[in-house]
Amino acid sequence: MGLAQTLGMQVLDASPESTRVRLRVTEAGLNVHGTAHGGLLFSLADEAFAIISNLKAQAVAVETHLSFFRPARPGDELVAVATPERVGRTLATYRVEVRRGEEGEVLALFLGTVSRRAGVS
Amino acid sequence: MGLAQTLGMQVLDASPESTRVRLRVTEAGLNVHGTAHGGLLFSLADEAFAIISNLKAQAVAVETHLSFFRPARPGDELVAVATPERVGRTLATYRVEVRRGEEGEVLALFLGTVSRRAGVS
Amino acid sequence: MGLAQTLGMQVLDASPESTRVRLRVTEAGLNVHGTAHGGLLFSLADEAFAIISNLKAQAVAVETHLSFFRPARPGDELVAVATPERVGRTLATYRVEVRRGEEGEVLALFLGTVSRRAGVS
Amino acid sequence: MGLAQTLGMQVLDASPESTRVRLRVTEAGLNVHGTAHGGLLFSLADEAFAIISNLKAQAVAVETHLSFFRPARPGDELVAVATPERVGRTLATYRVEVRRGEEGEVLALFLGTVSRRAGVS
Repeated sequence: MGLAQTLGMQVLDASPESTRVRLRVTEAGLNVHGTAHGGLLFSLADEAFAIISNLKAQAVAVETHLSFFRPARPGDELVAVATPERVGRTLATYRVEVRRGEEGEVLALFLGTVSRRAGVS
Repeated sequence: MGLAQTLGMQVLDASPESTRVRLRVTEAGLNVHGTAHGGLLFSLADEAFAIISNLKAQAVAVETHLSFFRPARPGDELVAVATPERVGRTLATYRVEVRRGEEGEVLALFLGTVSRRAGVS
Repeated sequence: MGLAQTLGMQVLDASPESTRVRLRVTEAGLNVHGTAHGGLLFSLADEAFAIISNLKAQAVAVETHLSFFRPARPGDELVAVATPERVGRTLATYRVEVRRGEEGEVLALFLGTVSRRAGVS
Repeated sequence: MGLAQTLGMQVLDASPESTRVRLRVTEAGLNVHGTAHGGLLFSLADEAFAIISNLKAQAVAVETHLSFFRPARPGDELVAVATPERVGRTLATYRVEVRRGEEGEVLALFLGTVSRRAGVS
């Protein structure tokens, strides 16, 4: 059990080049305006970020930046797509797009940096 | 119903000068390492940010930055304390500290900016 | 006269799809370690960001995020390449890569958001 | 010689608790709108950040966030005040306020994180 399960996330694929996680927006994930809570979008992006950054190293999140572009609504299927920006020896930065559907528009853009110890699969 | 309720948040106080939201870390909010998921810390901070920024305006989140300082563990009581950095006519920026307990150490530091329409209480 | 001229910047091209600005690292732009000052990398990225965001609107910078990947050294020719992430009616977000040479590796990654009034070319 | 000298910066004081750097806005630091270039504000904040983070360690900048609140104009005396948010063993985060005058309003808010090796004064 954990937050990913609590919020109904599903890992679509996980590789160092691209990791995708899916989630359907339900009432349990809304804010007071009736749209997806910022925390829901972040949690989805952060899960993809955590998975991709830990595939080939032991990684701990240092900081993240999230830009909100468009609201998500109940019933929307969100897909977070994480890709590496730069993977160094002790630090790595990843980009995560939160999309409406696998090919849909970008609702939020996440950038995150981890501190890592390589080779500790 | 909504994410704040799903994750068990409780508003301690809400004023334009300081807004505080509380949450106890449970198994439902963990990551695979057994500590609080980044999404849980963000959701708590984001809730305090949403409340304080909407008290005297209609506000929409533009972007947020989150730095992770220390992990939170099951049983920890987290308190997010939001305060204004700068409130302008069309934009406002808030700082949110996520603390272990009301007076405890800062586990994460959140900074967020909203686009706002004032006087739309 | 202005900062762009003070630091020796040269605009390579400017369009809403891609804007590039160049600068050669000299002694006047170093930090105490003898590498390019963070302010030099930021200034170059910020200039490309300012140009691209003002091409089709009157834009004011709201916030920026900059990740440092690798140091730049005296003699390096740096090229900042700005592209749009999302252009909305009142807000727009741009990505700027600071590269060593036009095709070289990314030394720094910049993300910036402006508040804009469209159609005020 | 270096960027700090090129832009006319002056260190007011430097301690691990608070480091301040001053700069007067001249024509050499403007943007096309006739106000201080974002790069000038960043450079000043980044200099204070570099100084404070290297006082008790060997530090390398990882990432920075900058929010712009109000424009600075020619003749304005700017003071960047850096203070620690959290200093850990391998990472440290600092806050830098760029003020108009030593006691004036905050024009820009900077947050930066370094990777550090302690005890390497």
